[in-house]
Amino acid sequence: MDTDNTPFPTEAALDAARESGRRAYELDRAHVFHSWSAQAQLKPMTILGAAGSYVWDGDGNRLLDFSSQMVNTNIGHQHPKVVAAIAEQANKLCTVAPAHVNDARSEAARLITERTPGDLDKIFFTNGGADAVEHAVRMARLHTGRRKVLTRFRSYHGGTDTAINMTGDPRRWPNDYGAAGVVHFFGPFLYRTEFHSTDQQQESERALAHLESVVAMEGPQTIAAIVLEPVPGTAGIMVPPPGYLEGVRALCDRHGIVMIADEVMAGFGRTGKWFSINHSGVTPDLITFAKGVNSGYVPLGGVAINGEIAATFADRPYPGGLTYSGHPLATAAAVATINAMTDEGIVDNAARIGAEVLGPGLEKLAEFHPSVGEVRGVGVFWAVELVKNPHTREPLAPYGGSSAAMSEVLGACKKGGLLPFANFNRIHMVPPCNVSDSEVAAGLEILDSALAVADTFVD
Amino acid sequence: MDTDNTPFPTEAALDAARESGRRAYELDRAHVFHSWSAQAQLKPMTILGAAGSYVWDGDGNRLLDFSSQMVNTNIGHQHPKVVAAIAEQANKLCTVAPAHVNDARSEAARLITERTPGDLDKIFFTNGGADAVEHAVRMARLHTGRRKVLTRFRSYHGGTDTAINMTGDPRRWPNDYGAAGVVHFFGPFLYRTEFHSTDQQQESERALAHLESVVAMEGPQTIAAIVLEPVPGTAGIMVPPPGYLEGVRALCDRHGIVMIADEVMAGFGRTGKWFSINHSGVTPDLITFAKGVNSGYVPLGGVAINGEIAATFADRPYPGGLTYSGHPLATAAAVATINAMTDEGIVDNAARIGAEVLGPGLEKLAEFHPSVGEVRGVGVFWAVELVKNPHTREPLAPYGGSSAAMSEVLGACKKGGLLPFANFNRIHMVPPCNVSDSEVAAGLEILDSALAVADTFVD
Repeated sequence: MDTDNTPFPTEAALDAARESGRRAYELDRAHVFHSWSAQAQLKPMTILGAAGSYVWDGDGNRLLDFSSQMVNTNIGHQHPKVVAAIAEQANKLCTVAPAHVNDARSEAARLITERTPGDLDKIFFTNGGADAVEHAVRMARLHTGRRKVLTRFRSYHGGTDTAINMTGDPRRWPNDYGAAGVVHFFGPFLYRTEFHSTDQQQESERALAHLESVVAMEGPQTIAAIVLEPVPGTAGIMVPPPGYLEGVRALCDRHGIVMIADEVMAGFGRTGKWFSINHSGVTPDLITFAKGVNSGYVPLGGVAINGEIAATFADRPYPGGLTYSGHPLATAAAVATINAMTDEGIVDNAARIGAEVLGPGLEKLAEFHPSVGEVRGVGVFWAVELVKNPHTREPLAPYGGSSAAMSEVLGACKKGGLLPFANFNRIHMVPPCNVSDSEVAAGLEILDSALAVADTFVD
Repeated sequence: MDTDNTPFPTEAALDAARESGRRAYELDRAHVFHSWSAQAQLKPMTILGAAGSYVWDGDGNRLLDFSSQMVNTNIGHQHPKVVAAIAEQANKLCTVAPAHVNDARSEAARLITERTPGDLDKIFFTNGGADAVEHAVRMARLHTGRRKVLTRFRSYHGGTDTAINMTGDPRRWPNDYGAAGVVHFFGPFLYRTEFHSTDQQQESERALAHLESVVAMEGPQTIAAIVLEPVPGTAGIMVPPPGYLEGVRALCDRHGIVMIADEVMAGFGRTGKWFSINHSGVTPDLITFAKGVNSGYVPLGGVAINGEIAATFADRPYPGGLTYSGHPLATAAAVATINAMTDEGIVDNAARIGAEVLGPGLEKLAEFHPSVGEVRGVGVFWAVELVKNPHTREPLAPYGGSSAAMSEVLGACKKGGLLPFANFNRIHMVPPCNVSDSEVAAGLEILDSALAVADTFVD
């Protein structure tokens, strides 16, 4: 895709923005309490503006945004059709209560269910991914009459209490209520296999056998749902090996367990399909989504519900809700986003970029940089696993932590003009789905230089 | 306030809207899963448009919106300054990650902390009220190192798992995990006193003695927080009697318990002050807010945090967050809303309407209608308690349920052109804070006719 006609700000505009950015920084440090942070230790970056695949920092430096912020701006920054749709809906009708019918909400539900697999034909809208996961789990618990939920280690499912207890990363620990009805299992991850596998096929089979054992030991009739990201995101972008999702589906069917695909990060084009589970032939019972559904331009999430679970709540009230469920402005942004992604072939672009440009480019970097243990991904969803030692696979930062080495590598990215997404010892290259070939080439070139810094830490 | 120049739609515009409303209704029934409902039994009302204190239903009928939807459109529908601010921010920058500094977020935090009591000078932004409550409780738990939370029966705190378990209304029951660290107590409510009181002073003292007993029996050193709506909203708009909030504050201070004021519904002008707790001299430790902060034009909520609790997370990471924390579009809408409310004297208008127009008008209706057991409220936040028998105070619908009588009364309101908020046996008259005197007069006249229907059910 060619986004070279992205409207960049003039120097005069940047000057004015810098001034207001300084004031914003002062007020931020005085009054804003930030997510997941020790507040006194923060030196947050100011963002003065953004367009397409770019953002401008507080000094007016242009950066390639290969973080897509929180891996949510799948359509890039400030897509004109979505911006226009927001202004238009704001002018028409900003909000109504969830009890009433609203045309933006209805149309968003239609467009989403048109893209979900199987008979996931009803949408319960939420404000984001965390509450989508909370409600999906509630539906599964009430549908099955069971309480326990199985989720993966190396996963993220959201920040509210139930969602964070389901999460399989260290952010759970300070919020851990001693499991609270959640049991964690290991998923397939060949590079750091729990199962002593030597290839993807074996990893798939052994991961399924492990899950089957966990289900047997926990008691199949006690398990309401198995919840997984088909491609785990923040935890490391582990594309599932052949047969894994099919095996999970079969296991769920055997025991009447609800299969919930958490597509909050991987959905809406990120993997080069509308939903990441579409790479398999599997139809889950529930899908949770957020982020890419409208690129986060307005807060929105939701649950896609199959016919059987929807029927459970046909004549029995569903005991959950929220003031902004199906918010007109948020759903109007979803309608515009989904239509623009469709009309402009943005999902296909993500697939092509992954297969032909970003994937091969990263593989090439891996060949030349000993600090790169592995690159893996699909579409515009790629992880670069950095190691101190390619043989022992010792990570460049410990699980759950950071390191001076990682800080230097990320500093080199930023200095070069690249803003990637980072987690522990990994750099994720997750540009918008409509990123251009030349932007990817530019990003890879900056990453190449930054990896030279990483190489200096290799034993 | 005079909103008679509200731009009403033309007949031609309504015709077009009716057509698209029919399509929206069909798609809604096919694809939208609604909050708190048995899906097959729903016949939701379509909203074609809205302006100021009015909405138009699917047939194009104009209704006075004295529900303010979910008691959130404090600034009325489609306030031109807020609509313009949303369009402007959309055009400038729709979204950034919470880690970065953004000027709309910074300014919203400044404006909110300028209005909070005491040293509640930091804002953690969320998407709505439920996640605000979840995060406030998490802060209290980590700050105190204690787990238990005390909340009131007859309260609502949100729909996610922790928030719904804190809630003291029947929506909790199907989600109840056997308390889950939450203990409920009775608050002051003279009309249906738990404490056999005969006046407000006695009710206040006895409710405090009861709370003190609950704290003593549960173990003060096990209690992280007491969470309460200073004026409970959906549960019945019980204005606290003199000294009650002061007593709760003193009890919290005595035992190192965090006092959390849930201002999601009562905040931002609803009671004729910026926060309902401002009617007392009490400064809570945390305030949760949502709804009125930007009238729900864009999903937004948050927690205002005092210096002591913020200091807990100065060098220790706060383990919570969300993708849309401090969302630029949502916070820009808050900036415009707060500024418009300030510039146009909208909070003062709410106080005046309550004291001079809506309050006296409702008191007068109570005199003439035997079905009205009590009216109570403040600002634009009023409950009309309907009873079958004014002496026994038997409600017109049971706690947690509806009744044919209530349906008839609500039907009469709608037929007359009034959309109130309803809960069990109560009608809440909760118009926007900038409602005009003549709109209130019109609403009271319709309510008068509807109460005549209620009177026919009185024994």
